[in-house]
Formats: sequence, C-alpha cells, structure tokens
Amino acid sequence: MSGGWVAIVGLGPGAGRMMTPEVADTLAQASDVIGYLPYVARIAPRAGLTLHASDNRVEIDRATHALELAAAGGRVVVVSSGDPGVFAMAAAVFEALEAGPAAWRDLDIRVLPGITAMLAASAAAGAPLGHDFCAINLSDNLKPWDLIERRIALAAEADFAIAFYNPRSRARPDGLDRAFAVLRDTCRDRRPVLFARAVTTPEQALRIAALPEARGDMADMRTMVIIGSSRTRTIDRAGGPLLYTPRSAL
Amino acid sequence: MSGGWVAIVGLGPGAGRMMTPEVADTLAQASDVIGYLPYVARIAPRAGLTLHASDNRVEIDRATHALELAAAGGRVVVVSSGDPGVFAMAAAVFEALEAGPAAWRDLDIRVLPGITAMLAASAAAGAPLGHDFCAINLSDNLKPWDLIERRIALAAEADFAIAFYNPRSRARPDGLDRAFAVLRDTCRDRRPVLFARAVTTPEQALRIAALPEARGDMADMRTMVIIGSSRTRTIDRAGGPLLYTPRSAL
Repeated sequence: MSGGWVAIVGLGPGAGRMMTPEVADTLAQASDVIGYLPYVARIAPRAGLTLHASDNRVEIDRATHALELAAAGGRVVVVSSGDPGVFAMAAAVFEALEAGPAAWRDLDIRVLPGITAMLAASAAAGAPLGHDFCAINLSDNLKPWDLIERRIALAAEADFAIAFYNPRSRARPDGLDRAFAVLRDTCRDRRPVLFARAVTTPEQALRIAALPEARGDMADMRTMVIIGSSRTRTIDRAGGPLLYTPRSAL
Repeated sequence: MSGGWVAIVGLGPGAGRMMTPEVADTLAQASDVIGYLPYVARIAPRAGLTLHASDNRVEIDRATHALELAAAGGRVVVVSSGDPGVFAMAAAVFEALEAGPAAWRDLDIRVLPGITAMLAASAAAGAPLGHDFCAINLSDNLKPWDLIERRIALAAEADFAIAFYNPRSRARPDGLDRAFAVLRDTCRDRRPVLFARAVTTPEQALRIAALPEARGDMADMRTMVIIGSSRTRTIDRAGGPLLYTPRSAL
C-alpha cells in the first residue's frame, strides 16, 4: 500500500520539445502509464514500466484503474495530450476519487501541467489569444447541445476570442457548422477563424478563413479552431499571415 | 542584416522544471534577451548574451527594440512569464511589427508557448478548469472598466469557470472587490474561489473561499484567481482540499 502515487500529466501538443522536464522526470519514475491509446503510444517502453492503453470514452474506468494501482503501491502516471486539466483526464480522476473508497483520499495525487492545444495553436499562428478569451469543448457527449449554443452566443456577446476543443467527431459531423451559424448570427463581421491542424507535428497545417466563409469540413478531429474577437487582426507577410489580438480594447 | 530572428517565449509560471526544452534551447542560442526585469532575472548570464531588462508598462518600446535588434542580425529572445500569447509580449511584438517598417515583416519571428499561470494554478489545486472556462485580464490599463464588468457578468451567465489575470495592482486596489460584487449579483451561490499565489515557487500558497466570503485583499500581484462554475466541487482530504469541475453538464 505504501509508496504509491498518481501523477496526472500533460504530454503537450505533440512535439517532444514541448513536454516539460517535470513531466519527463515523472514518466522516468513510473511503474505504470495509463491513457488513451494514441497518447500512451508517445511513451517509450522500458523494463519495469507497464503501459495500459485504452480506447476513448472510458475515462472513468481508466481513472479508477489508476487509483486502484496507486493504492496497491504503483507509481502511476495518467497521460493526456496537452494539459491534463483542460478537457482531459484530471477531472475524470477526481470524479473517480470522489466516488471511490475514502482511503483513496490519502493517496499522493499530483497534476502536472502541459502546453494545452490552444496555446500551441495560438503560438503557431501569432497571438490570437492576446486579449480576453474562452475555451469551449464542442463535444456534446457530456452536455446538451443547446447549452453549447447558448455559451457560444454569450461568449461572442462578451467579445472573447474563442477556442473550440474537439470541434468535430464522427458522431456529430454538423456540430461545428452549427457553431459557426451561431457566431455569424451574433457577430455579423468578417473576423478571422484559425484552423490549426496537428500543431507542432510534421503534419502541422494552418488555415485562416473569414467567419462568413468558415466551414465545418475545414476541421477534423486533430484540428484546433480559434475564432478571433472583433478586434483580431491579420498581418500579411511573404512567410504567411500572422494572426493576433491587440492588448488594448480602448 | 541576415541571420537575425525574434523568438517570443514563455518561461512558464516560475519553476525551471516547467520551462519547455524548446524554450531552454532557444535561450541557449540567443544573443539578446529582452523583457520585464523580474523575468529577465530568471535567465542565467553568460558570455555573448546581452540581457536587456526594462520596467513594466513599456511593452511597445521593448517590442520595437527586439525587432530593431533582430533586423540588425541579433538572435533575440523576448521573455514573458507563463505563456507569451496570454496577456503578455507576443501581441505587443505584433503591434510593433504592424506599425513598423515593411522590411520587418520578412524577419524570422516565432512564438514558443509556455505553461500559462492559470494552468499551473489549476493543477496545483486540482482541476477547476476541467469544463468550459474563460480568462479575463482585470487590468484596466488597456480597456475600460465597464467592459470588464460586462464581460464578467456574461461569463457568469454562460457558467464558465473564470480565471482572473492581474487581479490586483497598486493603481487599482478595488478592482477585484468590484469583480466579486458583479459575480455575487449574477451567481447567488457559494461556488469556490481559488487564490493561488506564487504557484510553483517556494512561496506557493493556495487558499479557497466561497464566493460570498471572497475578498480582494486575499490576492496580491503574484496571485492567480480562479472562480469555479456553478458545478465546481471541493473534495476534502487530510492533505488539503482538491478543487475540480466535473466534465459533465448533464
């Protein structure tokens, strides 16, 4: 029982050069790594390390498994892409902790942050999140779609830049088009929309469209979508456009 | 003229273990480091490296200086705490770029992300940003205070968790109390408010207060404030409370 711990870590957006040393050191001490298959695939196998890869949509099972292994003395690392606290495994582990045996609350549990996708996408394009902004998960697995639409409309009314996580899924192919329709109703301008695919990987591709021309099929499951605020600007350059939101709203 | 570049980098929240290898490698190649004095103080001096530390509120001068040095062949790193794209130097550099000589647009300019303060604060406390959230800069240097209040009210209406950057300043000691008043009017519940001071440094201190009891003087200039959504929960433990927002809003 003694000596076990759980570290819920963020691997960053993809490139190894963006994983923090804290996360790398913690992975080096692990007995078990738990996570969604494509994220576990980023961890190099070694003697003494068991890799537990699971399918998507079983976050609570995965979280419970991590806590059970730690309670039995395991040095358990739960991996997410990006940051573990942003639409990722940290909340799932705490849900499992709250629902589980009281003894689990004595476990050593740490969350180690990572570079979340919107920061990597923003950096790749310039600085579209340079003024007030929000992050909305477009997946409607765990919330009603009308709440998502209401939240998008209020975010546009507040003139936030908006980062959409999980903009597309096989189960809900029209969600992003419906989100753009809400934005067009609320915004009525030509603000830029960034489609940032597979950021920091060799497949990275950036595309900018004005809101009236933005379409759901410009994104896939590896795309981060960032909608500018009313003040977001584009600087044209030979090397490709830069997108940024000025600091001032005066 | 040839060979110059500008990298606008995030040093992370404070601890060296949270700076990405990409940023560390880029600093090792720099001829010049430019930034606000306490951030430049985090860079080790070495032969061949000139450190340019400046006071706060001169971001545009600093950004222009960086572009001038790069145009003259310098390998220039502009440093921010946290992430450079979140209420930091990246937007200032692009403002200076847009206002400057056309030739500057041919410069090699990169933004290298870092762990922004809200991610580090969230990780230290649990996962309060585990569902939709927003980030609002409470500084009214560059926007009117009534816009800040309107944005806070809309964010609460959308039921975002809310991260406040720059919650207090000497020039505006009552801003955070006014922000809490707006939230109390809109929310009318006892949602938790996290005060996370000097996160990841030896002076780290976390405090949680229910919204009705939250006061502006619980924060100082080194504090990140995160207000939970209506669903944010606290798990009591011998080792200190954990704060998290469940993934589901069903």
